Amino acid sequence: MATSSVEQRVYNFSAGPAVLPVSVLERVRDEMLCLPGAGCSLLEMSHRDKRFLEILHGAEAGLRDLLSISDDYTVLFLQGGSRLQFSMIPANLLRGSSTAAEYMLTGSWSKKAIEEARKEGPVNVCWDGKSDNYASLPAAGQCNVPDDAAYLYYCSNETIQGVQFPSEPECPQDVPLVCDASSDFLCRPLDVAKYGILYACAQKNAGPAGVTAVIIRKDLLPRGSEDLPGYLQYRNHAEADSEWNTPPTFAVYVMGLVTEWLASQGGLAAMETLNRRKSQMLYDVVDQFPQFYQGHAQADCRSLMNVTFKLPNDDLQAEFLSQAAANQLCNLKGHRSVGGIRASIYNAMPEAGVAALADLMRDFANQHA
Amino acid sequence: MATSSVEQRVYNFSAGPAVLPVSVLERVRDEMLCLPGAGCSLLEMSHRDKRFLEILHGAEAGLRDLLSISDDYTVLFLQGGSRLQFSMIPANLLRGSSTAAEYMLTGSWSKKAIEEARKEGPVNVCWDGKSDNYASLPAAGQCNVPDDAAYLYYCSNETIQGVQFPSEPECPQDVPLVCDASSDFLCRPLDVAKYGILYACAQKNAGPAGVTAVIIRKDLLPRGSEDLPGYLQYRNHAEADSEWNTPPTFAVYVMGLVTEWLASQGGLAAMETLNRRKSQMLYDVVDQFPQFYQGHAQADCRSLMNVTFKLPNDDLQAEFLSQAAANQLCNLKGHRSVGGIRASIYNAMPEAGVAALADLMRDFANQHA
Repeated sequence: MATSSVEQRVYNFSAGPAVLPVSVLERVRDEMLCLPGAGCSLLEMSHRDKRFLEILHGAEAGLRDLLSISDDYTVLFLQGGSRLQFSMIPANLLRGSSTAAEYMLTGSWSKKAIEEARKEGPVNVCWDGKSDNYASLPAAGQCNVPDDAAYLYYCSNETIQGVQFPSEPECPQDVPLVCDASSDFLCRPLDVAKYGILYACAQKNAGPAGVTAVIIRKDLLPRGSEDLPGYLQYRNHAEADSEWNTPPTFAVYVMGLVTEWLASQGGLAAMETLNRRKSQMLYDVVDQFPQFYQGHAQADCRSLMNVTFKLPNDDLQAEFLSQAAANQLCNLKGHRSVGGIRASIYNAMPEAGVAALADLMRDFANQHA
Repeated sequence: MATSSVEQRVYNFSAGPAVLPVSVLERVRDEMLCLPGAGCSLLEMSHRDKRFLEILHGAEAGLRDLLSISDDYTVLFLQGGSRLQFSMIPANLLRGSSTAAEYMLTGSWSKKAIEEARKEGPVNVCWDGKSDNYASLPAAGQCNVPDDAAYLYYCSNETIQGVQFPSEPECPQDVPLVCDASSDFLCRPLDVAKYGILYACAQKNAGPAGVTAVIIRKDLLPRGSEDLPGYLQYRNHAEADSEWNTPPTFAVYVMGLVTEWLASQGGLAAMETLNRRKSQMLYDVVDQFPQFYQGHAQADCRSLMNVTFKLPNDDLQAEFLSQAAANQLCNLKGHRSVGGIRASIYNAMPEAGVAALADLMRDFANQHA
């Protein structure tokens, strides 16, 4: 079989698993048969091998550098995706609690998180975006979070709806702020010190599917009760340096390479500048043709990562997707629960790909509006 | 960076993650930048993409063909490794049960499984190999499993001790037999119809770390109570075709390639013949020098996968490991809990590697015995 090449690649707007930097894929390809000096592939290497431990610690250091994570936090690499975090968080922080956990219901993913949390203890939905079909996010002062809440949970970017918090919501000082950052992790700088738990499955901005980075403040580790299933106990993983069981070694390795790539691009501040520029290219076209492209998100909470909009009817939408595919602009169909178009433009999406999509949108609107 | 090559590879006796077929690694390498016809890497492809669904279903079909799995069973691809199965099994089959689950305590992994099961319900250890330091396995008639046991659990191959059940233990007809086959999965044919649940993390014979294959009889799916954490509920995964959440797509893809490779090698009967021949090469040397190489396992339960033995003292052992490494025979040090030497010789370990190790063992014994 011929080796695949860069020339065969399209612009891939998949919401996740999603586009990765070509240089990372090339490195993975080049090291596939034999990690330099190791005598075997990373896929074949014991997780206890000192070379793998260097890779694991390198991925952790990469995240710590990019996000300026202090020693007050442990960084874990876990399996089970966000779905398992939906359960692990309340299993550790809510089971047996006399006060409720507060959840902001802002879209599909926070809804699923709430369903799991209710199995573990009392939950209060302190904000619900249902009235405008999850197109907006809570404004300052709209959520009344008690000072003794078990924690405050939110999803910083709802991938399906395309709404993103511009910054962290207000949270009482002694209430741990818990964030599902799966789909906007590493897209911009943030202040980890504001969080109790910040977690993200990798398959958007941070790597392939199969690993979830969990950044947890160390003082929260003792809270999990002894009777939790062992894998669900954060401190088991913390005490074992993410090797309580065999970690997903390949996914950790790729995540480490992605953090190196991000550093080489100027880090998260540079990434935010780029992401603002890329997303603005698309929102500008939406705003230029407001009758033709109906954006889902309110203007003040538009996502930098997932640009969602609808066309006037299904026929036009099908025609748009068809023309896009003919131009190598792929995987633009919106999630089945929302419909329309979703352009996921994560860190590794080249600016040229976004520009090509903006051009198509403009041409298509001029042709059909 | 230069592309890594086959010539740089050593014989890798790692217990897991472990050696993979070179042809599988070459295929992964060649498809890394672009899966043929997909326009992107497998790492970047949505798990809902029809091409990935073909890969997922292909991996399942590969397992079904190799093991002749009937439609009475569902095949799941899960995250969290054996450790999460240690909890998922009792969470689904033991929580709320009035009768105990029966566990055979045969080594390190069944011990950990028992610890987790005790959190979920009553456990009876129906056999314990402690008296001879887990060098033997229960003989026929030694375990008295009640007809109404919740299930009977055993680990078919204890990787650390190097003991392997020659065939399934006796089990009352109505008691589900549950097996952790992580380290001998796909090493020989077996009759899946004997099992309630047969599971294996991939990183020994079946692929890279990060995916666990769970073969579960469909009539067991309704048993999990509604209040389980969603990820721990088998039927969530069964009803969603292993896409209840984003599966570890890369690990599933590699597992599919490994099943194709196994089929090309003649399937599991051919693999058993090869594995018997390979392991016998090493056990023959152990038996030839019984004072020098002290095998851990009793003769009737020696593992085809993990050959464990000790040398007369630590100095000789260090010298042996040193000479082995000089001959490109690597990762032979035994697990820290047992010590000694462990040669893990999974399906993909070339016969030439085992022969080279047998030669070294013979030479070393002749030199030092």
